[in-house]
Amino acid sequence: MAKKFTGIYPALVTPFKGGPLGDEVDHEAFARNIRLLNAFGLAGYLVLGSTGECVSLTDDEAVRLAGIVRETAAPGKLVIAGTGKESTVLTIAFTRRMAEAGADAALVRPPSYFKGKMTREALKRHYRAVADAAPIPVILYNIPQNTGIVIDPDLVVELSYHPNIVGLKESSGSMPYLVEIIRRLPADFSYLVGSGFLILPALLMGACGAILAVANAAPALCVEIERLFRKGNVREAAERQLDLVPLNKMVMETHGISGLKYAMGTAGFEGGLVRLPLLPLDEKAAAEIDALMEALP
Amino acid sequence: MAKKFTGIYPALVTPFKGGPLGDEVDHEAFARNIRLLNAFGLAGYLVLGSTGECVSLTDDEAVRLAGIVRETAAPGKLVIAGTGKESTVLTIAFTRRMAEAGADAALVRPPSYFKGKMTREALKRHYRAVADAAPIPVILYNIPQNTGIVIDPDLVVELSYHPNIVGLKESSGSMPYLVEIIRRLPADFSYLVGSGFLILPALLMGACGAILAVANAAPALCVEIERLFRKGNVREAAERQLDLVPLNKMVMETHGISGLKYAMGTAGFEGGLVRLPLLPLDEKAAAEIDALMEALP
Amino acid sequence: MAKKFTGIYPALVTPFKGGPLGDEVDHEAFARNIRLLNAFGLAGYLVLGSTGECVSLTDDEAVRLAGIVRETAAPGKLVIAGTGKESTVLTIAFTRRMAEAGADAALVRPPSYFKGKMTREALKRHYRAVADAAPIPVILYNIPQNTGIVIDPDLVVELSYHPNIVGLKESSGSMPYLVEIIRRLPADFSYLVGSGFLILPALLMGACGAILAVANAAPALCVEIERLFRKGNVREAAERQLDLVPLNKMVMETHGISGLKYAMGTAGFEGGLVRLPLLPLDEKAAAEIDALMEALP
Amino acid sequence: MAKKFTGIYPALVTPFKGGPLGDEVDHEAFARNIRLLNAFGLAGYLVLGSTGECVSLTDDEAVRLAGIVRETAAPGKLVIAGTGKESTVLTIAFTRRMAEAGADAALVRPPSYFKGKMTREALKRHYRAVADAAPIPVILYNIPQNTGIVIDPDLVVELSYHPNIVGLKESSGSMPYLVEIIRRLPADFSYLVGSGFLILPALLMGACGAILAVANAAPALCVEIERLFRKGNVREAAERQLDLVPLNKMVMETHGISGLKYAMGTAGFEGGLVRLPLLPLDEKAAAEIDALMEALP
Repeated sequence: MAKKFTGIYPALVTPFKGGPLGDEVDHEAFARNIRLLNAFGLAGYLVLGSTGECVSLTDDEAVRLAGIVRETAAPGKLVIAGTGKESTVLTIAFTRRMAEAGADAALVRPPSYFKGKMTREALKRHYRAVADAAPIPVILYNIPQNTGIVIDPDLVVELSYHPNIVGLKESSGSMPYLVEIIRRLPADFSYLVGSGFLILPALLMGACGAILAVANAAPALCVEIERLFRKGNVREAAERQLDLVPLNKMVMETHGISGLKYAMGTAGFEGGLVRLPLLPLDEKAAAEIDALMEALP
Repeated sequence: MAKKFTGIYPALVTPFKGGPLGDEVDHEAFARNIRLLNAFGLAGYLVLGSTGECVSLTDDEAVRLAGIVRETAAPGKLVIAGTGKESTVLTIAFTRRMAEAGADAALVRPPSYFKGKMTREALKRHYRAVADAAPIPVILYNIPQNTGIVIDPDLVVELSYHPNIVGLKESSGSMPYLVEIIRRLPADFSYLVGSGFLILPALLMGACGAILAVANAAPALCVEIERLFRKGNVREAAERQLDLVPLNKMVMETHGISGLKYAMGTAGFEGGLVRLPLLPLDEKAAAEIDALMEALP
Repeated sequence: MAKKFTGIYPALVTPFKGGPLGDEVDHEAFARNIRLLNAFGLAGYLVLGSTGECVSLTDDEAVRLAGIVRETAAPGKLVIAGTGKESTVLTIAFTRRMAEAGADAALVRPPSYFKGKMTREALKRHYRAVADAAPIPVILYNIPQNTGIVIDPDLVVELSYHPNIVGLKESSGSMPYLVEIIRRLPADFSYLVGSGFLILPALLMGACGAILAVANAAPALCVEIERLFRKGNVREAAERQLDLVPLNKMVMETHGISGLKYAMGTAGFEGGLVRLPLLPLDEKAAAEIDALMEALP
Repeated sequence: MAKKFTGIYPALVTPFKGGPLGDEVDHEAFARNIRLLNAFGLAGYLVLGSTGECVSLTDDEAVRLAGIVRETAAPGKLVIAGTGKESTVLTIAFTRRMAEAGADAALVRPPSYFKGKMTREALKRHYRAVADAAPIPVILYNIPQNTGIVIDPDLVVELSYHPNIVGLKESSGSMPYLVEIIRRLPADFSYLVGSGFLILPALLMGACGAILAVANAAPALCVEIERLFRKGNVREAAERQLDLVPLNKMVMETHGISGLKYAMGTAGFEGGLVRLPLLPLDEKAAAEIDALMEALP
């Protein structure tokens, strides 16, 4: 996989059904969303990222979702699957299952439960062992808001020279993080920004693409920001980036995945329920999101 | 289960073998440790707490360990099993499996991956749903150093009145946390301290017992601290508490579970390997622990 | 000053008057409080601690307050004065002024504005230079909730052997912090606990006294806890400690210095106004504090 | 002051001399730096920002420095002075002194010692009272790495409509912070980025200028980034931005103000000593900075 992961990837949500706990995965809604998204010029899909409530699923549920993405994605779309677990042996085993289910690459978040012991050396050994054993390329995943751990920028640079580590999804939304390492990475390593707040700034400073939760609800606008940037129309891209911000804030910070799923509904997709411990959206929040979705260009 | 969880419970380690990744669980070593511990006047065992590297195991591995504890524990020993998962449905299903394997009570850590959304309301609904469905009593588990989440003291008080929530393991080692709630809890609710630094202060202020990692390596001293306290010999208990501190620091903070497993070896137990991403102990650390173990009273 | 700082010291509040900004120090109220407190068996006073809103005052205001304490304190009461500033030269100069004003010892919080650079080495050089130059003994001050910095326990031990560093006020309320260092400190070094939540546990584990905000409003109860402990009546001391907790929480955490000043009023003292940016107390909070003060034994 | 604060402002360092404590301010070096900087197309100067070690100075030292900047700055250069103190009355008094000394605007960091009480309401009242009383316009200052406090973005928007609050220096380097508020600010309000890592991204998304520590050592490169951006040459500006990153990291994060002062020396300026508790640079760090300064375009 020599070529870079350019373009926009939605971090697919997992629609649930069946009551307040979100007991069942709604496979039909999930597949339908992908069929609709196929039309938007996206580069591919991330299945089982944080937005996919990956940690809330059984392994069997997760593998089935990966299979559905593989079958349903239009030809040429890349399928990235979240495969990180809390130990190396679990991560390797799960990465193999996801590869068999059709994933093109594995997004691996750092183990984080033993926070105080996740030194640079521990993470290095973990990622190397996973990358050595994985039948598909590995993408590092920095998402301290969920893991409580920042993957040290210097470690990213060091790991980027491993032959089977091909990219980084950086979801903290830190521009200093990006500019500190972007020139030190191999040419075929993909820096993928994971925050809808800075698609354009990240592309401008050297990111090659974006994996985005908000692209579930506003795929056209996300794709448009990248298109304008590639054309050299940076000022207009900046306006579209700012157009995206209020929705991104609402569905990422204020109301989270519940808000994102609701916003998807207003855009013709089917977000479905969240699985507890995530809470359903209340009516006031729904009205706020309605207003933001209508205001999108 | 009307009676309180008094006494000392070791948070059992899981010995691994089979190479640098810690591929296999060493069931023989695990059972042997329990048989040895049976002689120390402990109240029971916690299997699959944080110290048991619970997050590093498959569910099948975990269930088998619970079964071994049940079979091997001396009569009258209580078996508490860690059953927390990241979603409510997963936690309920796993709690049921652990109950079938013989656990007397379930220790449930809060879901923590979606940190920003683990509001008091979210945790309340999660714990209530788990406690409603669990076939065994539930013990809350506050361990912010690993989860990044503090269970609000007021929420503990509120949940303590649920008929199937019977206790709290408080592992942050915060004395303010304890004194703020201890008088507000029902008489049959068990406050269990989860830090070897403050067994005596916690007992003095109202805790009824302790679940301790360090009790794997120094069970006699832990039991002695409680015994002296129960006898009213508080000054001597304080001396024994201070005797325990250097080892507790070494095996909890400085060198973590690797250090604890090594210390167990010097005390005649078998700690085994850790599972990656935890790292093995180096020689210098081993020498430090040797010295501390020799200095124990 | 060979003898230890045993006993209870209120961290005196600074009463303000003169409008919403708290423009003026109310010297009369300040002196009156001390005259009343002189009757309670306290060991002395801390002037210009955090509770004294030290950072909100001009140096001249601060020096005048120190002078008032010196003049007003009953014979035999020790006067400790907060003298920490953000640079070493400022701290030395201010410590000298406070010594001239009559302070017996200087409580020196760590510089904290350049958080990322306050390494162990930086703090060591700072404290040594201050202690070398100070005409009065120096007490270290660990208060991370305000400074954002934890003074490393090993550094406290190292500095405790400096001939002019005679104590530590530990206000984080961490019992692990205490037990990790208490046996490693020189016999004439005073560990003073700075949290009303753990007077008794701290004394039991080796602290020799306490500097307390809550002692402005409940001096008798604070003194009683220590007295019972000294008599060996630990169980009753624990009950009194728990009696103190709700008020301590209310005036330290929930409502802060505004709450403390109000509580002082209900106890016959004069808290006065706070200085902005601290906000005045609202009526609901006042009613809560009334109830707690009435419930005190 | 209707016009915006466009352009680049160095956050001037304060050179010290006189021994390991940095006892004396080196006024000659300070003035010489400004005379040299006058030639670089900078918009003006910030005196007594964090980089100026403002918290380490006496008020008299600070006022004298402001006077020197006013006298030495070339005609047309704006002089911004840091005037924030820990209480409202102190901040107002100090702002008045700085205005008399010649400052055109006051940069006011939030009070931060009483972290837990610096609610949105407390900060709002503080900033309003300061802005009402200040004889010069006020610029808000968000620098959580030093204060431990984030000024809530919504509060910035609210305060931006106060007639005497004219801008924000945002030094956390957060792009989400910028994009969340930039369209909600009045047209004459100046968003000034305070991080050398993101001059270009910030300008692209709507910032109107930058206040930068690194501009003490690399003024030409900082000015060039803005010039290229204004000309519409965004791609080349991005290259220059990336050229600046290694130096910015070295002098802001790795070695801090000591590193910056040393780098200034290699560029023909005079950084002087730091004042303790900041530590002097070691030789290895000096060699690293030499290499980075030589590599600058």
